[in-house]
Amino acid sequence: MAKKFAELEARMAPEARAQAQALYLQHLKELPLHELRKAQELSQEALAKKLHINQAAVSKMERRTDMYISTLRNYIQAMGGELEIIATFADGQVKIENFAE
Amino acid sequence: MAKKFAELEARMAPEARAQAQALYLQHLKELPLHELRKAQELSQEALAKKLHINQAAVSKMERRTDMYISTLRNYIQAMGGELEIIATFADGQVKIENFAE
Repeated sequence: MAKKFAELEARMAPEARAQAQALYLQHLKELPLHELRKAQELSQEALAKKLHINQAAVSKMERRTDMYISTLRNYIQAMGGELEIIATFADGQVKIENFAE
Repeated sequence: MAKKFAELEARMAPEARAQAQALYLQHLKELPLHELRKAQELSQEALAKKLHINQAAVSKMERRTDMYISTLRNYIQAMGGELEIIATFADGQVKIENFAE
């Protein structure tokens, strides 16, 4: 099935592909960090243990509206995920690679 | 064309959709910030002007391997783009909405 998707994408004109990509990102579920943690069935205590910090620090982190990219990456990785930084333009998306580990 | 993509996606089983999504993100072009700026045909001077900082500050920013999400968002927006923060898990992706403007 993944192969079919790649084939379909390869047959699309660049503008259509950019449209499809934008559409895909628009349709992604949006969650705040604490909801994402709950979806992974992790408590603040469990996540704090993985991050070697205390529960209050996790609580504080989840209420922030700005933080270092490395801090966010550590939080996501502690849940078993990977962080991706995407820049969306009218003609498509690119991944920003400055912050790769 | 965008409609066709949405229809195809809707017909896919959840696991296949997660696979297709992961595949899509894997296939995105990866660029460091300075290459992205050049692709937008902007000089450090031009971007500095938009950000109300000097050229040296832009140069320094482009060499950083960590920064605040708000700083990165300002840089991307000055180029005419939008920043998206995605967490990728084995079973799919979610957008992190804590840092929405």
